[in-house]
Amino acid sequence: MPPDQALDLSLDVSGDTVALLEQLVNIESVSRNEQRIADAVEAVLRPLAHLEVSRHGNTVVARTALDNSSGRGERVVIAGHLDTVPLNDNLPAVHGQQDGREVLRGLGTCDMKGGVAVMLKLAATVPAPNRDLTYLFYESEEIETEYNGLHLLSQSDPDLLAADFAILMEPSDAVIEGGCQGTLRVDVTARGERAHSARSWMGVNAIHRAGEILDRLNAYQARMPVIDGLEYHEGLNAVGITGGVAGNVLPDVCTVSVNYRFAPDRSEAEAAAYVREFFSGFETVVTDSAPGALPGLDRPAAKEFVEAVGGEVNPKFGWTDVARFSALGVPAVNFGPGDPMLAHKQEEYVPVEQVHRCESVLRTWLTAGPSVGPSVGLGG
Amino acid sequence: MPPDQALDLSLDVSGDTVALLEQLVNIESVSRNEQRIADAVEAVLRPLAHLEVSRHGNTVVARTALDNSSGRGERVVIAGHLDTVPLNDNLPAVHGQQDGREVLRGLGTCDMKGGVAVMLKLAATVPAPNRDLTYLFYESEEIETEYNGLHLLSQSDPDLLAADFAILMEPSDAVIEGGCQGTLRVDVTARGERAHSARSWMGVNAIHRAGEILDRLNAYQARMPVIDGLEYHEGLNAVGITGGVAGNVLPDVCTVSVNYRFAPDRSEAEAAAYVREFFSGFETVVTDSAPGALPGLDRPAAKEFVEAVGGEVNPKFGWTDVARFSALGVPAVNFGPGDPMLAHKQEEYVPVEQVHRCESVLRTWLTAGPSVGPSVGLGG
Repeated sequence: MPPDQALDLSLDVSGDTVALLEQLVNIESVSRNEQRIADAVEAVLRPLAHLEVSRHGNTVVARTALDNSSGRGERVVIAGHLDTVPLNDNLPAVHGQQDGREVLRGLGTCDMKGGVAVMLKLAATVPAPNRDLTYLFYESEEIETEYNGLHLLSQSDPDLLAADFAILMEPSDAVIEGGCQGTLRVDVTARGERAHSARSWMGVNAIHRAGEILDRLNAYQARMPVIDGLEYHEGLNAVGITGGVAGNVLPDVCTVSVNYRFAPDRSEAEAAAYVREFFSGFETVVTDSAPGALPGLDRPAAKEFVEAVGGEVNPKFGWTDVARFSALGVPAVNFGPGDPMLAHKQEEYVPVEQVHRCESVLRTWLTAGPSVGPSVGLGG
Repeated sequence: MPPDQALDLSLDVSGDTVALLEQLVNIESVSRNEQRIADAVEAVLRPLAHLEVSRHGNTVVARTALDNSSGRGERVVIAGHLDTVPLNDNLPAVHGQQDGREVLRGLGTCDMKGGVAVMLKLAATVPAPNRDLTYLFYESEEIETEYNGLHLLSQSDPDLLAADFAILMEPSDAVIEGGCQGTLRVDVTARGERAHSARSWMGVNAIHRAGEILDRLNAYQARMPVIDGLEYHEGLNAVGITGGVAGNVLPDVCTVSVNYRFAPDRSEAEAAAYVREFFSGFETVVTDSAPGALPGLDRPAAKEFVEAVGGEVNPKFGWTDVARFSALGVPAVNFGPGDPMLAHKQEEYVPVEQVHRCESVLRTWLTAGPSVGPSVGLGG
């Protein structure tokens, strides 16, 4: 047995949530290596009488099953992934200061064990919430979809994802970010005719022809539609360009790889049609796309949650797994501690105050109104 | 001893020059593998009393040393390289027809064993030319300068290259091509600021900025100066473009590699200054350059040669080793059988008539006027 597996990996959920976060961060869980952290999470939840716990690979699902006469007949998913991007000399976790704020630094502090700690604390200490909850601690969000625990669950056990609303605890600076924009990649190709560069008038330079592709990109005006009161901001950007045969040859092919980020009022098909029209006259091949997610803030559960947080909602520009919920018909928002701009950075950290605030907001929302029981162990 | 080294590689210069060409083609001599062909050439020339032969690596030099009272006090270099580009399933040589003309096909027929066969035939059969001659059969023209036999000789034995005029028997469709254009490569770089493509307004897209580089190239008007009565044709072309970090990142660097082909009235320094000015506002790094060569058609030996060929002279657009002679103060022209557009092509061939014509023109020129002796063995 390797030494690190001999360590006591049991998690203590009785103390402050930041202490729990530190324990979670120190269980290294790079994608495809989530067994130990999933075991530790399962060990906390499995004994709790108010939860039905199931294990699917290294994804742990914990559900309340309220007597509907006392609950609201509504189910909310709270989800977070257990994995991180690769180690970058940034473990174990370290307490520090940043811009006058107390923070915890280390791999996964921001993306997204801060959110996972809040989920785990709530799952353990809110035995009788005012609506049914499904906690999803899932594996392999940071890598290909084929490994993504949420994707796998949607294939194997879609009933477990059924809900009226979902909160994905990805970092959002502890502010609700509604929906997400879609993303599409398209290769736009200009063609020419090869010729020796000493007799360039014998050929047609494909790189020169690609100048018009770049001209169109430079003239692009971003669409900024307002959806459910949120102003999205599209983007159309070259993310790669290649062309060239040899130092003395006019190239016959030049390809610009373009990434279109589109607001969630547009489908993948509409997005593809838009780029084809935008680059008309050039060959276009869509190489990759993922739909956006509408914020769905008109749903009752979403409205109440927004009120509980204080009414502030921002649009989500980046693509997140909220789109997977949206595709299942479940409106979803991002809400978690940590600055999304720090995700995947070596120096990632999470402000302690945001961890506490997210926990407090959710606890208040889940226990307010026609509460069906006492909340215990108010951490943080 | 490998079987092919056991073959009889002696060359027969007593027959038609095309028969000699076929023998030369069938001695495979890809760059760095010229020993056998150099040995065969040396074996032909070494016994001839009218030539002083020296060997330098796989370069063979054969010089006449006329009594100046009978010659014109003038020396002409006739040069050709022995190597070819790599094999491409195009040996041995095959006789055939092309557009109604008799041709010889195979690796090196065009570039440039047609010229080499003419040189070797003349060296063997014009024992008393009307001007001193230096025949240069040299190695490794098709690869890096450090291996080029002409370059090596200019370093080790520059006296052997001294001459009033040089004829490089590179393929020129049996027409004189005067001088050559210079070539310069410059990397032109646009810079920006990285950002996640979901929030593209936070960054500056370097590929989009490179659009202006391509716009300038598209607006370029080629200079076409007339020098010694020859109209050159410059060219400024992107030959490569690179940019891109990842499919979701605005790139911060995009580099366009540009090849400038410049007429021989412009120096390398002037060419570099021109491209820097042309791309002002962008970073420019000159990565490679080689000077052009002035046609030098005002020299007496050149004038006579032009008259002997019938007066037709074209400008040479591609860069050739005539520039090495020019740098040594020796005016030089290209004149050899074969279409230069077929050089380096799998299907290269040389028209039989052009081989005979080049031989005939040179023989007439070298034996006309105040001839100093009989010409023997008028081949072809």
